[in-house]
Formats: sequence, structure tokens, C-alpha cells
Amino acid sequence: MSLTNASPSEAARAAKEASHVLATLSESARNDALTAIHAGLTAAKDEILAANARDLEVARVAAESGQLSQSLVSRLDLGKKGKWEDMLKGILDVRDLEDPVGRITLRTKLDDGLELTRVTCPIGVLLIIFEARPEVIANIASLAVKSGNAAILKGGKESTESFVAISRAISAALDQTQVPNGAVQLVTTRDVIPQLLGLDRYIDLVVPRGSNELVRYIKSSTKIPVLGHADGLCSMFLEQSADPQMAADVVVDSKTSYPAACNSLETLLVQESALDTLIPPVAEALLAHGVALRCDAQSKAALSRKLSPDLAAKLEDAQPADFDTEFLSLTLAVKAVADVHAAVAHINAHGSKHTDAILTSSAELAELFMASVDAAGVYWNASTRFADGMRYGFGTEVGISTNKIHSRGPVGLEGLMIYKYKIRGQGHVTAAYGEGDGKKSYKHEKLPL
Amino acid sequence: MSLTNASPSEAARAAKEASHVLATLSESARNDALTAIHAGLTAAKDEILAANARDLEVARVAAESGQLSQSLVSRLDLGKKGKWEDMLKGILDVRDLEDPVGRITLRTKLDDGLELTRVTCPIGVLLIIFEARPEVIANIASLAVKSGNAAILKGGKESTESFVAISRAISAALDQTQVPNGAVQLVTTRDVIPQLLGLDRYIDLVVPRGSNELVRYIKSSTKIPVLGHADGLCSMFLEQSADPQMAADVVVDSKTSYPAACNSLETLLVQESALDTLIPPVAEALLAHGVALRCDAQSKAALSRKLSPDLAAKLEDAQPADFDTEFLSLTLAVKAVADVHAAVAHINAHGSKHTDAILTSSAELAELFMASVDAAGVYWNASTRFADGMRYGFGTEVGISTNKIHSRGPVGLEGLMIYKYKIRGQGHVTAAYGEGDGKKSYKHEKLPL
Repeated sequence: MSLTNASPSEAARAAKEASHVLATLSESARNDALTAIHAGLTAAKDEILAANARDLEVARVAAESGQLSQSLVSRLDLGKKGKWEDMLKGILDVRDLEDPVGRITLRTKLDDGLELTRVTCPIGVLLIIFEARPEVIANIASLAVKSGNAAILKGGKESTESFVAISRAISAALDQTQVPNGAVQLVTTRDVIPQLLGLDRYIDLVVPRGSNELVRYIKSSTKIPVLGHADGLCSMFLEQSADPQMAADVVVDSKTSYPAACNSLETLLVQESALDTLIPPVAEALLAHGVALRCDAQSKAALSRKLSPDLAAKLEDAQPADFDTEFLSLTLAVKAVADVHAAVAHINAHGSKHTDAILTSSAELAELFMASVDAAGVYWNASTRFADGMRYGFGTEVGISTNKIHSRGPVGLEGLMIYKYKIRGQGHVTAAYGEGDGKKSYKHEKLPL
Repeated sequence: MSLTNASPSEAARAAKEASHVLATLSESARNDALTAIHAGLTAAKDEILAANARDLEVARVAAESGQLSQSLVSRLDLGKKGKWEDMLKGILDVRDLEDPVGRITLRTKLDDGLELTRVTCPIGVLLIIFEARPEVIANIASLAVKSGNAAILKGGKESTESFVAISRAISAALDQTQVPNGAVQLVTTRDVIPQLLGLDRYIDLVVPRGSNELVRYIKSSTKIPVLGHADGLCSMFLEQSADPQMAADVVVDSKTSYPAACNSLETLLVQESALDTLIPPVAEALLAHGVALRCDAQSKAALSRKLSPDLAAKLEDAQPADFDTEFLSLTLAVKAVADVHAAVAHINAHGSKHTDAILTSSAELAELFMASVDAAGVYWNASTRFADGMRYGFGTEVGISTNKIHSRGPVGLEGLMIYKYKIRGQGHVTAAYGEGDGKKSYKHEKLPL
């Protein structure tokens, strides 16, 4: 790892060169490097927490004068119960994942002695831009080394002291390993993000870890592919045959278990024919959990008839913009729709292609919904909050992508991989194949992987 | 299909809406549409060739006055031997490929009654920008329908009459099928490419089919992912243990079998220790095929000693820029390098990540080369010209990609697909899982596909 005050383009060029070496390291060499990072951070705990305390002190002063939010200060704190231990455990968890490099995904015999193989390999150079949480640096360095990618790390200024201390420890640890110097670059100079985002010659993928605003800014400022999502406007459709108790449970979990998460529910669509039966118990459960309901006229009228007057008094009127809003808080937009087709049309027009669900007893309607909604996750009778790499069993999560190419939904190590085609021949030439006298034909036999 | 004079954004919005329907059609519905397109074009042959003749007439006049190249006129001509038949056969070939939609690539039991499935699905809306060859429209319409993607087609102005006639026939054919109107849009208005490239809200992937200049312009002008390659600077390394006759055969095939192709050889690297033995027979074979050799000082000195004076007189001096040049003609840059490491370093610095090869008798060096070179194709003892979707056995080729994410190398139908995650539950909520009293754990059992 280099702690660099080099120019962004020098750092990126050095990372590119290192990536070519890193891509050839064996699994054991990469795993040994992760073991070394773990040991190095363990040994440097005191210095790192002392550095973090200095960041925290500055941040607390800034928070008192209103320049920083209290939640940012809280995210900065590496001394919080369990955070340090989780960070260290995460490194070993990543080390122990199945090796993503060198997997053979296609083998074809093109002709006698001429074999085509498709093999997974690292993408190259990742640019990771993150905000306050200093533990991200250890997580990302681990993911990069495990997947054979070089990484350029750019953190927020609030956690500079912590980043520098952590990266010094990682750097010293990697010096004892086969991972080349330059494979992990920490850029500490300020205001270089626009320059980094212009380096598409060297940088192959940007992974932003932070607020929606950060992701949105990055997506609009670079030609380099960005792995992530700016918005998580998740919707759920209550079809008339859904079980009312199940609906109340799943909607409450989707909305209230972590309202600030990208996989939380923001829009509830209810079938018109179920306005008198299904939405009242769901609304009662949501109101009991402190959720503000912004209802369209039709759903509000039905709920006003069915709820007790004190609950009905809490209902709010939805504005059109509410159905395009990711509230990230205990507010939910509610709308009546005619049927599953109207629900799908609404979601495809207003959603963010993140995660959308249908609650229904009808397998047929569920399958239609899941086939028709254009989103990374489409669920039947389950909470939208299952959209998560750990919950999916990926072991780690690089991020959640709403892109339409490469990687979609929760992204594990696979999202940091691409493939190359290898051909092993014996002097084969293309002019020997074709139609006509003396020409050969390709065999194109699938071989076992 | 709509033949539209609508604004680009209206066409794109309509394509997006149609894509949601197209994504839900069964394999047989999509295949029936391809059968209908084939029948429709067969029936309309006379009108289409008449329209093509009008395009040709205008183009020939322009070529005579030097405004168009003769090769463009030749690419326009649908009446050329075999071209019409190939176009029609291509539609049925695509129809008969394995269905790329709905393949299950991951199944995990998250818990009892809670199952995660990853299923391939179309990307959404493709923007296809192509130049003179009118048969591309039938090819691309077939690929889009087969893969369940909507497509917006923008062709070059030289072939407008042909495009309109072909698309009218396709349009009439699709009207008889389940493929929604709007799924394939032909934009005939002029000068709309910049507008189309700005519509990242509706368009998910751009596929340029045409010259390097076209691809380079498009890549530099849009935030939408572009599937393709601007450059094909392929290199080959002659390691000292390579068989001289095999080397001559493979180098000649790589350079001369179609010099204008992106997978043709542009740079030949020769190990210094083999300058007296290996490069002379290779150079003789290349000179006999009319190839101009631009040699660095070291390789020129060796060849000048070994070749006959009349051949030696043909050698040219390489300039530094020659090693960054895709000649696309019978010119080859030649350079001496110390060993495989120097060859890899040269290729990773100067290549275009398309296809690079090593000729050697050493399996160990071949594997090192293939692991270290950062390219879509890395070959051992085979011609670079094998880099081709038909030769790889993909049945069809969308293009060749030098991107580092999503699809790399020759891209078949798979490159037009992404996936979505489906969860089928029974009212499962995330709050039930975790650590502590009464909390459940995820099972994360891999299920057979």
C-alpha cells in the first residue's frame, strides 16, 4: 500500500501497473496478505484508536457548531462497541471465501488440439470513494486483495487521521507479502475526486460507499462504470388475496426495521378491491409503529371509513411527488391501483429498479409480477429488506447495484470479476477453416468444466 | 416495429414501455416473431432490393465525385452474391439458438419456505447505431427479439431507403405477433445521435456497429454503457523456443488473412535471443505476402544480416508511434524484447486489450503470458484471428468488447442479458433473524439449478 501525495494520475498509473502483478498472484499469496493485514491491524490497535480519537475530537467540535451531523460523528467512531472486532473479523471472513479468481466458466473444443477456455479474472483497478466510516478501508482493501484487483482509496476528510493510521498498518503488513507496492493506494490530498473520475484510462470501476448524494454526484461525473445505486425507492403491492396478518407483518418489517436503508419500503400499492379488507389492518400496524401514511384520495377515503377516528385523523394527503420520493424515514406513500398490471406499470414508471414485492396468495399473479417488474430484486410474500449480500449468503457485500449491466442487486466478490478467453493451440490458423475444397469445419464441442 | 419521426425521447420512452412487455413473452412467442420476420422479408424481397438500388444509385454518384468511398458503396449493396440469403438465414439461425431468457444461475434456500433464485432477463432497451450495411437491421432486430430486449435503430443516411423498406416489412410481420409495437424503433430523422446518447434514463446499452471512428465518438459522447471496441491493436510475442515454421504460418494468418479486421496482428514482438533464428523465416513469409515491416533498430539489424539484400532493402524503420498504431492494412510493427516479462509489459502498456498471443514450446511461459496479459483474448500458439463469435461457437456475434465489465471479447446473446433476483417466501420478515434470544439464523443452502 502506498500512502501517497502523488498526483491522482500518478497514483492511478501505479495502481494499474500493480494490478497486472496482483492478477497473477496465487490464491495462497492473496490469502497470506489478508492474514498479514489482520495481524498488522491487531498490533496497531492503540495507535489507530488514538488517531481515531483525534478525528472524533475535531468532528465533535464541528458538530457542536452545527457544521457536521451527529450521525456522521457516530459513524466515525471506531471505538464503538464491537466495531473494531467486526472490522478485524471481516478481513478473515473475506480471506476464507471461495477464491473468485481463475474459475473456468466455459470450455469448448474448437478443433483437435485447439481449445477455448473462459476464465474469471480481476477487473483491474477499482476507485473506492467513501465517506466517514474508517472501517471501510480495511473492508475494501481486503476485498481488493482477495479479488486480485488494485484499489485507489479516497476517504472523507473527517476521518483522515484514522485512514492514515489504518493504511500505515496495512502498508507495513503488505510489505511482508507478495502483493506489490502500489496495489492499494490511499489518496489523502483534497479535492481530487473530479480528477480521479476523469482517469478512465487507468481506472476500470468506481465503487462509491456513502450517501445517495455522493453516489448521484459520482454517477453524473464520470465515464468510468459505477457500481452502486443512487436511489432505493422500493414498492410493495398488496393484492386482494394476500393474508391480512402476513401483510401487516411484512409491510411493518419492510418499512420500520431500518427506515434509512436503501431496501426499506417507500410506496405501498393496494388493490382497489381490497381497500376495505386488507389495508385497514396494515395501516393500523404501521400507525402503531409511528409511520406517517401519505395516502391518495381513494385509499384515504377507505381508511377514514374503517379506522378509528383518532387513527384516521393521523392520515396525510399524498402529493404526486410522494410517489417519486425515497423518504428514508418513517413516512410511507400509499396508493390504490386497479390490479397487478396497474401496480407493475406504476412501479416500472416510478421505482428505482432496486427491490419490489407483491403480497398475494396467487402463485400465478406473483410470477407475473416478478417477470414484469424491472428491478434487481422481485419478491413474493417477503420483506424488501432481504435485499442484502449477507442475507443472500454472499459472505460479503461490495454494494447494491441498480445498474442494468454487469452486476445487479447485492454484489459479492463476483461483481469485482470479469473474465478472459484463453485459446491453447498447436499452430492453428483461421485460413484453414471455411467452406470449399480442403477447408476444415469447427467442432465446437462443449467440454466439461 | 415503429417507423418513427417521433422525437428521440418519445421513441426511447416508447421502447422502454415495450421492453417491459417484451421481457415477459414466452420463448415460443419470441421465436414465432422471428419466423414472421423471416417470412415478411422473403415476401418483400423485390421492394427491398428496389429500394436498395435507389440507395446504391445515389451512393455511386457520390463515390464518383469522391464524397463516398468505394468500399462503403460495396457494403451498401444487398444484391451482392449471397448477401440477401445470408441475411435471411441469419434470422433463422438466431431463432434456433438456445433461449437466453429465464436461465436459473443460482438457487439458495435462505430458510424454510424462503428461496432465492437468480434468473437471466433482458437488459431492457438497446440503442443500435450502425453505418452503411443495411442487412444489420435484420440481424439486430432478430437478436433483440430473441433476447427480449427492445431496440432503437439508427442507421447511416446512405442506406435510408433500404432501411425503411426492410423495417416496413419487419413492422408488418411483427404486427401479426405478440411482440408489442414500439419494441423495435427505427429512427430516420437526421442528426439525432447526440440526443439519443443523452437518454440514459430510457436506454440501457449502446451497441455501435461500424468504423473505429464511430465507436470512438460514441464512447466519448455518452454515459450509457457502450458494448464494443474502438481499437484492436493485437500483438504477438515470438518466444525463443517457438517452432519457426509454425511461427511463420500463425503470424502470416494473423496479419494477412483480413488485414482490416480488428483481430488482425499489428505488433510483433521477438525475443532478442531468437533474432537470428526465429524472425528471419517469419519475416520472409510476411514479405512474400506483401507485408511492410516497420522494425526497431535491433530487429532491423538482425534481419539485415540474415535476409537476402533485396528483401533486406524492403525493411522500414519503426517510429515510436508505430507501436501504438492499429494499421488495419498490410503493415506490421516489429520490436525486439528481452523476454516474456518485457513482452507482457509492452503489451499491457501499448495494446488495446483485444487479443494477444504468445508462440512458444514452453507451457510454463505460455501460462505466465496468458495470466499476465490484460486482454479479452490471450492465446498460445494460435492466430489472433480466432477472436470471433462464430469461431468461438456462439452462433451469433453482437460485437467484440474490450470493456472491463459485463462482457468481454466476442459477445454472443449472453451480452444482451442481465439477471434479477427472485425471492419466494411465506411472509418472511428480516427482524426474525439475527443474534440473541428467539432469533433465527439463515440456512444458506445451495440448491441444484
